[in-house]
Parts: sequence; C-alpha cells; structure tokens
Amino acid sequence: MTYDLLRGCRVIESAAFIAAPLCGMTLAQLGADVIRVDMIGGGIDYGRLPLAPAGRSLYWTSLNKGKRSVAIDIRKPEGRRLLQRLVTAPGPGGGILLTNIPTAWLAHATLAEARRDLVSCTIEGSSDGSTAVDYTVNCATGYPALTGEGSRDKPVNHVLPAWDVICAMQAAMAVIAAVDRRRRTDQGAELRLALSDVAFSTLSHLGLLAEAQLIEQERTSIGNHIYGAFGRDFATRDGQRIMVAAISLKQWNALVEACGLAAIIGPIEQGLGCDFSKEGDRFAHRQLIAGLVEPWCAARSLDEIKPVFDRAGVCWGPYRTVKELVAQDPRVSLANPIFETMDPAGVGPHLAAGPALRIAAAERKPSTAAPLLGQHTDPVLQEVLRLSPAEIDRLHEEGIVAGAERDPLLGTDR
Amino acid sequence: MTYDLLRGCRVIESAAFIAAPLCGMTLAQLGADVIRVDMIGGGIDYGRLPLAPAGRSLYWTSLNKGKRSVAIDIRKPEGRRLLQRLVTAPGPGGGILLTNIPTAWLAHATLAEARRDLVSCTIEGSSDGSTAVDYTVNCATGYPALTGEGSRDKPVNHVLPAWDVICAMQAAMAVIAAVDRRRRTDQGAELRLALSDVAFSTLSHLGLLAEAQLIEQERTSIGNHIYGAFGRDFATRDGQRIMVAAISLKQWNALVEACGLAAIIGPIEQGLGCDFSKEGDRFAHRQLIAGLVEPWCAARSLDEIKPVFDRAGVCWGPYRTVKELVAQDPRVSLANPIFETMDPAGVGPHLAAGPALRIAAAERKPSTAAPLLGQHTDPVLQEVLRLSPAEIDRLHEEGIVAGAERDPLLGTDR
Repeated sequence: MTYDLLRGCRVIESAAFIAAPLCGMTLAQLGADVIRVDMIGGGIDYGRLPLAPAGRSLYWTSLNKGKRSVAIDIRKPEGRRLLQRLVTAPGPGGGILLTNIPTAWLAHATLAEARRDLVSCTIEGSSDGSTAVDYTVNCATGYPALTGEGSRDKPVNHVLPAWDVICAMQAAMAVIAAVDRRRRTDQGAELRLALSDVAFSTLSHLGLLAEAQLIEQERTSIGNHIYGAFGRDFATRDGQRIMVAAISLKQWNALVEACGLAAIIGPIEQGLGCDFSKEGDRFAHRQLIAGLVEPWCAARSLDEIKPVFDRAGVCWGPYRTVKELVAQDPRVSLANPIFETMDPAGVGPHLAAGPALRIAAAERKPSTAAPLLGQHTDPVLQEVLRLSPAEIDRLHEEGIVAGAERDPLLGTDR
Repeated sequence: MTYDLLRGCRVIESAAFIAAPLCGMTLAQLGADVIRVDMIGGGIDYGRLPLAPAGRSLYWTSLNKGKRSVAIDIRKPEGRRLLQRLVTAPGPGGGILLTNIPTAWLAHATLAEARRDLVSCTIEGSSDGSTAVDYTVNCATGYPALTGEGSRDKPVNHVLPAWDVICAMQAAMAVIAAVDRRRRTDQGAELRLALSDVAFSTLSHLGLLAEAQLIEQERTSIGNHIYGAFGRDFATRDGQRIMVAAISLKQWNALVEACGLAAIIGPIEQGLGCDFSKEGDRFAHRQLIAGLVEPWCAARSLDEIKPVFDRAGVCWGPYRTVKELVAQDPRVSLANPIFETMDPAGVGPHLAAGPALRIAAAERKPSTAAPLLGQHTDPVLQEVLRLSPAEIDRLHEEGIVAGAERDPLLGTDR
C-alpha cells in the first residue's frame, strides 16, 4: 500500500542489504518514485536467504516492494555515467540519491556539479570510517550482555537487525526533511548517517549512556523481566507462554484483580515495607510478584486466561512463532488495512505490509511487488533521460543496460 | 545538538513512556520547538528507573532533551482547555499535536474544529484497540523464539525496546511529511500509528512473514550465528569476546586471509562439494567454519587480533558492556560531533547525543537538556496564548498551571 505524501519525488537508490533499501522502500510507500539501480544479473544481496520455493530471494523481494528497477553495468564507465545522469536529471522532484556505496563517482560533490540542489543520503557502517554491519555495531552497544541470560563473557545477540531498521527510518526522515527544505529554499543537502551513530545515539536517548556514566553499579541481565517495573513471561497449563506487563499503575491493578492477588498484596507490602503502587518497588520485588503470578497462570489454560485478563484490562500477549502469528493473529491478515496480498513472479502469493502509518480519510493505494531486475530499464531511460529507442537499443547491445530477460532467477517469467 | 531543518514548527507533546516522547525529541533535534505538557508534579513516567544519584530519572531526562515543559493540571476542565488552546493556537508552524493518550478531548475531530489544518499524530498500542506495550507486541512477533538459545517454549526477549524506537522514528517521519504537505496544500492530517503495526510491518519488510507463509520449514534459533551468511561471536585468549561477520564475499576473503585459512578452505570445498564464495554455502557450513575461526581467536589476545583483522579488512568488533563502551570507544566521546556534554539539574554532567544524522556544512547547534517540570510554563503561555501576567498569575493561584518550583524532584534548583 502507498500514500501520496511524497508524490512527485524521484529517488535513485544504489544500495544493498537492509538499511538503505528499507529506507528507499519506506519512501516508496509514502508515494515517492524510487528507482533502484541494480547490477545486471543482480547485486551482492540479490540472492540472499531465505529463498522462496519458486526461486527468488524473500529477503530482496520483501525489501524492494513498490520500487522500479533499472539494470546497469556500473563497472563500465558509460554505465556509471548513466547512473550519475539518472541522479542529476532535471525535474523538481528529482536529484535525490540514496546509497550505502562509498565510491568517488557517487560522491555528493561530484554529482552536485551537475545538479546544485542535489539531496544525497549516504548510509555508512561506522562513524570512524571502518566497515560495520548491524551485528558488529550491536556487540559494542552492551545489549548482548543484558539479553536473556547473557553476560559480558557469554553475550546473547538479538536477532532483529534493529539498528539497520532504525537507521532506515532516520534516513527516510532526513531525506523527507531535506527535500521539504529544498522546496522552500532551493538548497540541496549532503546527508550522512552511520549505523554506529544510530545505535549509540539511541543508547543515549534511552538513558543507558547516562546510566553508565552516573551510576556506579553496572546493569546486568535480568532474563525476560522488564527493567524498572514488573513484567515477565509465564507458562500456561496447556504449554503456551504469555508475556505480562504491569508498567503503569492501572496495568498493575488490573493484574492484581485478574489473578485475585488483592488479599495477599496488602500484607506483603506491610511486611516488606514497600508499596507496589510504585513501579520501582514492583521491580525490586519482581521475583516475589512473579512467584504469585506464576502458579496462577500455570493452573489455567490460555483459553481460560484470555477472557479474565482482557476483562480486567491486563497488558499481556501470547508468545507466537512467526508461522503462528501469520496463521492465528487477525492483526496480521487482510482484515488489517495495512496488509495486502502480493504475488511477485518467482515468489508466489503472500501477505505484504504497506506503511504502518494510517492517515484518516487518505486513500491507501495498492502497491506493486518488488520488480524483476531491469524490469523498468527502458521506460526509465526514456522518461527520465529522454533517450531515444535507438540509443536504448545501443545500450542493450553493448551490455551497458539490461531488461528483465537478464534476471538470473527469472529470465522469462514477466 | 540540533539542526534547523524544522525551524518554525511548534509541536505540542502530551505523551508518556518511549515511542511518543522519543518522536518529540527527534523533532526537537531537527529544530522544532517541542513543548511537552506535563502534569503538575509529573506524569506517569516522570520518575522511571534508573534514577541519577542526584535524584532525577535518567529515563525521562534522556528522552526529553531539548524540549520545553509546561505543567498543567489536565484533570481540571480549564487545564484541558489550556492544552487544547496550545495545540490550536494560530501561527503557520503551530497546530501540531503528538500524543499517545487516547482521550476524547484530545481527539483530532475535536481539535480540528478550532484549527482546520491540524496535524495530529496519535501513537497507539495494538491496532485492534487493545492495550499493548513493546514487550507484549514483541512476544507475538516470533523473535523471542529465535533469539539466543530461545525456543517456542523458552522464549528470549530482546532488551532493546526496538519497536518503540522504530515507532518513534516512523511517527517523526509522518509528522514531517504531513507538515510539509500542509505547507504546500493547507491540508491538515490525522495520523495514527499502532506499535503492533510497526512490528508486524517490519516483519513483512524483512521477509519473515513471506518466509512463514511460503517455506514449510519453520526457522529456529541459531544462537549468535548470523542467519544466511557466516558470522558468530568468538572468545579471545585474554577472555575478551568479538563478533565476526562475513556477509559479503570481500568480508569472507578478508577473514580467510586474516586467519590463514586459504590452504584449508580449498580442500574442504572440494571434499564437501560446496563453494564458500556463496554466502548460502557459508551459512550451511557455519559450524565447520566456526570450528576453524574459533581456535585461531582462542590462541590470540584481542590486542593481537585487532591489527591483523583491521589490516585484512575483516568486518568485526569487540563486545562491550555499556560502561566499557563509554570508557573505551572513541565513537562515544566528544571526539564524535554527534555528542555533547549535558548537565541537567538533578542529573549531573554526562555525554548526550544529538541526531545521528550529519548534514554537510550545516551548523550543529548545542541543545538544551531536558527541562524541569513546568520550567517554561509562563513564557509559553505568554508567547503562544498571549496571556497577560495577571491571567498567568490567576492560573498559578488556582493550581491550573505550575512552574518549576513544583517539580517534586527538584523544587528549588533551577
């Protein structure tokens, strides 16, 4: 699904992996025309796991929904010039480059010679210039030593590439703000965003850096407990698992009511001299509280727990595998307007999300699936660069561009 | 640090916890005037852990850097009307509301009666209307069953509130895009964003939903291995731990060179009939490759490994605790221009991050620390609502507003 907030913007994306492509897709879902320039035969991430039984990468096709694809051999000088010309082509919404490829011929200063009001956004690994990916940034954040039963010597990596995703959103936001400013002032912008800065600034915003500097005691892992309040996972009688959170006082009161703990909580508070209406006291005595909630959950099935928790207003949810989520949760189905069915060639029909954002009364248009490599080579060269059919033919013949027939995973199906 | 991309925008924030306040702070760091309306004495999150030895919440002060604070008793009808008037006050950059409080008197339709071009952004828990927080959304995503040694029956929660952070960035992006459109069209926007939709759409974009639908075999946890390529954590001789990633072919070749594996890799590929230049083959034989890298790392200290890895161009990094990060990593220091020192009252001096974004040639202005509660009550009422000193005095006397003297954590120090 797409909105038309960014209608008229044309973004040229020359990028791989997660952060930059997800940024491009985010802009496409808000209405920008995002033209991804791919290597003929596919770039470094075109065949990444997992693969659909029908052959194509679910990684690539999920991160490139709603874009157009132009296949260019950028190892050839004329191919590089073509990509440069796509970036700097005239038009009020053009002149926007998104990349994570640090190369001189895509440098802002080089391209700005041809288009003074260029907005370029370059995503980098580490702010010190060294190579870094989500995983080699994450190890430095301290989170693996705090996750699960993790410790300094036995870190637990989280699996969600969170820094990549956060970086993608910050990059998209930066491009939108810079293009907005360009509309008002005609001023271009050279934007840079390092994955390591995304991670470390987030640590600052969440208070972890200040804590490390100002509090002597180092934080240690607390398993599935929620830091600072009460919350943990619990097993049900029928082998299900649920997460329960009592962060606000309202949520705590609901949990006390649902589990029938009112009679015991008062005496415990008196005996311990604490006050569970304060989240800090709930956190300090989390093991004790968990010890009350655990047997209550263990004595009931999920089907018994659900109505009791929902009626009382407990903040909770069941654990699911991804397959269970897709099979069982109506929030992940066509009943939720953020989802639509996509059926890209070489992949097969599946549920795909548009923007999580909902805009009241705005039309949510169906989106297109990820393109085949080079599916839009000819129309883009014609529309954006105004090349003639004869010029386009020559580029094909000389192997400088290609259409979808050269997609290695799906040469003929288009 | 702040930029001036959003200069002239005035955002009224009535919000708690992480997603909405982080959205507001992100807008403030891009130059918006973000006025946070707090309850007199502090809202639900004002005292959240961890607390600085000097008394104030590091959680709250880290998430509210660079904002102004107006303290209003919104339980009183006149207090509610004041907040409504702050939102709908005239001025081209005003009329922007950010909230996660679902209440009729802050509803878009109500406020749009007074200001037709209102841009409101409401952050919700679950898209089905039920209460949800990061933790009760995360359990449904399937990630805890894939994290560490986690399984369906023994899930491992990640600790970074990733969905909150991603939600904050999407909300900030949405506000920027909607305000940009309003400048061009005079059209307001009612924006809504559910944390559950943020999470489930991310699963779609990362290919996990498609995988669950199209591939029969369910993914299981693989510890600290990187899915789809080669990467894992390793112990060094001196008890340090490092993360090593070989996602691209270049990274793989660098690792082979650094660890002197060239002579053994060829025969292994021949013997197994695989090709480690393909990331899928590296993933399939990850245990075997780890078995080669592990003894190499275990025989060397971190100081010995670092120059070898860096010279070869290996993608790697050391694991750190947050305290080690702050103490040892120059990327988290004043040498990195995204950081500055802040010294908020009741907290003490510490390193604080501005936007991770870097804009070439743009001035990065120092930011202000998180406000005291009500620190800006009088100037905001005067500037935005043009109330007279006598009117402001009456509001104080009737307990409808308060200044910083009523901050419970720091009544006098301002």
